[in-house]
Amino acid sequence: MKATFFDGKKITLDKNYPNPDLNETLVRVNLAGICGTDLEILDGYMQYNGILGHEFVGTVEKSDNPEMIGKRVVGEINAGCEKCDSCIKGLQRHCSNRTVLGILKRNGAFAELLSLPEKNLHVIPDSISDEQAVFVEPLAAAFEINEQVSLKPKWNVAVVGDGRLAQLIIQVIKLTCSNITCFGKHENKLEGLVQSGIKIKLGIESTDEQLFDLVVEATGSNSGFTDTMKLVKPRGIVVLKSTIASRENLDLTPTIINEITLIGSRCGLFKPAIDALATGKISVNSMIDSTFSLENFEDAINHAKKPDTLKVFLKP
Amino acid sequence: MKATFFDGKKITLDKNYPNPDLNETLVRVNLAGICGTDLEILDGYMQYNGILGHEFVGTVEKSDNPEMIGKRVVGEINAGCEKCDSCIKGLQRHCSNRTVLGILKRNGAFAELLSLPEKNLHVIPDSISDEQAVFVEPLAAAFEINEQVSLKPKWNVAVVGDGRLAQLIIQVIKLTCSNITCFGKHENKLEGLVQSGIKIKLGIESTDEQLFDLVVEATGSNSGFTDTMKLVKPRGIVVLKSTIASRENLDLTPTIINEITLIGSRCGLFKPAIDALATGKISVNSMIDSTFSLENFEDAINHAKKPDTLKVFLKP
Ligand SMILES: [Zn+2]
Ligand SMILES: [Zn+2]
Repeated sequence: MKATFFDGKKITLDKNYPNPDLNETLVRVNLAGICGTDLEILDGYMQYNGILGHEFVGTVEKSDNPEMIGKRVVGEINAGCEKCDSCIKGLQRHCSNRTVLGILKRNGAFAELLSLPEKNLHVIPDSISDEQAVFVEPLAAAFEINEQVSLKPKWNVAVVGDGRLAQLIIQVIKLTCSNITCFGKHENKLEGLVQSGIKIKLGIESTDEQLFDLVVEATGSNSGFTDTMKLVKPRGIVVLKSTIASRENLDLTPTIINEITLIGSRCGLFKPAIDALATGKISVNSMIDSTFSLENFEDAINHAKKPDTLKVFLKP
Repeated sequence: MKATFFDGKKITLDKNYPNPDLNETLVRVNLAGICGTDLEILDGYMQYNGILGHEFVGTVEKSDNPEMIGKRVVGEINAGCEKCDSCIKGLQRHCSNRTVLGILKRNGAFAELLSLPEKNLHVIPDSISDEQAVFVEPLAAAFEINEQVSLKPKWNVAVVGDGRLAQLIIQVIKLTCSNITCFGKHENKLEGLVQSGIKIKLGIESTDEQLFDLVVEATGSNSGFTDTMKLVKPRGIVVLKSTIASRENLDLTPTIINEITLIGSRCGLFKPAIDALATGKISVNSMIDSTFSLENFEDAINHAKKPDTLKVFLKP
C-alpha cells in the first residue's frame, strides 16, 4: 500500500509499504486529518517512528464481523492490553501497555490502509460528511473536559489559545456555559468566535487576572501555562489540554498558594462527539481548510504548520 | 516588647520592639512553633520582612469583646480586606489584599505580643495543652485536604515526605482511609508510623509506580514532585502541599498524558483541627521536640533545620 513513513527524523512516501497484518479490523482510509500532535511528533515528541496520523474516517475492508464490512467508520486511537486494571475499567486509553494509532507503537492513518481492534471502531451516520467525521477524534478530546469537570452554567470561563482544538473546546463548553472569553493571538481565527457570542481578547490585561472560574489551556505553547495561571481565580480549575514537546521552568507555587486544581486532559470517548456532529449541536464546517493527496504530504504538512491554517486533510 | 525581627536577610532579637498598635485583638504569646515555611522565609521565600511565626497559642490581653479577655486562643493566620468576592465567601485566605501572620505584611508570633482580628481567634479547651495547641495551624492545613478531596475509604494512598506536616496529613487521611504508604527518607521518623499501621518505604521501587489513587506531596523539596508523579495512577489525584522556594524544570506532560488532577492545598479551617485534638482523634504528642526561650531563637532555628527534628517551640 501507499503510506508515509516517519523514521524519527524525516517523513517519506513509500509506495510499497506492507499492508497491516495484525489480526484486527482492516480499514481503507477515506480521509485523514493533520493535527498539532502530528506536528509535534515530527519535531521529535514521543520518539515515535512509523506511519503518522490518528484522525481519520475510512471504510471497513476486512473484519471478523461480516456486518462491519463496507461500513464507514472512525476509530478510537488507544488499543489496550485488555488485561490490566485500566483496561478492565474500560480505560484502554490509560493502559500502560497501550498502543496509540500513529502516536505510540502502532501505524497510523497517513496511508491507504490501517487496522484497529473492532471495539475501537464507530460507524458514522450518513448525515456526517467525511470532512466532518475526521473531527470526531479531536472533538472527543474536547468533550473529555465534560467527563472530568462538572461545568456550571454560571461560571466565567476562559480558553487560552485560538487553534483548532481551542475552537472545538469553546463549542463544547458553550453547550453549558454562556460566559466564555477566548484569549488568542490570531485575529482572523477570533473573528468567527465573535459571531457566536464569545468574547475575544488578543492579550491578557491586568483586569483579566484571577477573574475566571475555569481556564482551559489549549495553546500548544510553553507560554500558555503562565497566561493560564494569571487568569484563574483562587480555588479555580485549570484544564491542561496541550501536550507539548518541552515545558521548562514551570513554577507550581501559585498553584499551591491559590489552591488551584490542575486537570490534565487528553483523549475522550467518541460517542458524545459523534452525537453532537450528527445532531448539529456542534459545527465544524468553518474549521475545514483544504485537502491534499497523500503524495503531496509535504505541502500538506507545511500548510498545516502555518499559524492561520485550520484543518488540513490528506486523501490517500 | 521582646520580638525577633527578620530584615529579609538576618533575624535579630529586639528587646524594645513597639507593641502591636492595630485596632485588633491583642494576644500575649504563650508558645509559638517553628515550621518549614519559617525556614523557607529565612531562605528568602515570600520576600517577607518583619516578625516571623504563624503557629502559636496565646492569651487575649486586650479586646473590644470583654468576654475574650483572658481566654487562651489560637488564630487563623490570614486577614482579608473583608470587601472582595473571596472575603464575602468567607475565603479570607484567598483575598488578594490579605495579610498573613508572620508571612505577608503582618507581624507574627515570635514575639511577646501579636494582634489579629477577633474573628480569626478560636478559644482552646483546657483539654488541649499549649504544646498541642500550637499544632492547630499545621493540622488545619492537613485537614484542608478533606475540604478539597472527597476521600474514599478504599483508596490506596501515598504520602511523600515524613516531616511534621506529612505526619499530620497521614493522621488526617487515616481517619478515612486504611491503606496508606509513607515514602520517606528518615528511618527514625518512619518507625512511629509502622506502629499505627502505616506502610513505610525509604524509596520508590518500580513496583510502586502508578499504584496510588491519591498521592500527597509533602516533602518540602524539589524532588518530591517527580516522585509523586511516579506513584500516582492514571486519572489519579495529587495534592501538592509543599510551597517551596523554587521549582524548576517541572514537566507537566505526564499530568496531561495520564489525566492527573493536581490540587494545590494550603491553609485550612481551624475548627476540625481543634475538635480532632480535643477528642483525641489525632495525637501530636509524639511530634513534640523541644522548647527554647525567645532569646535562644538562633539555637531553636538551627535545631529545627536538622532533618530529624520534630516540632520546636519558642517561649517568649
Ligand atoms: Zn491494559
Ligand atoms: Zn478580601
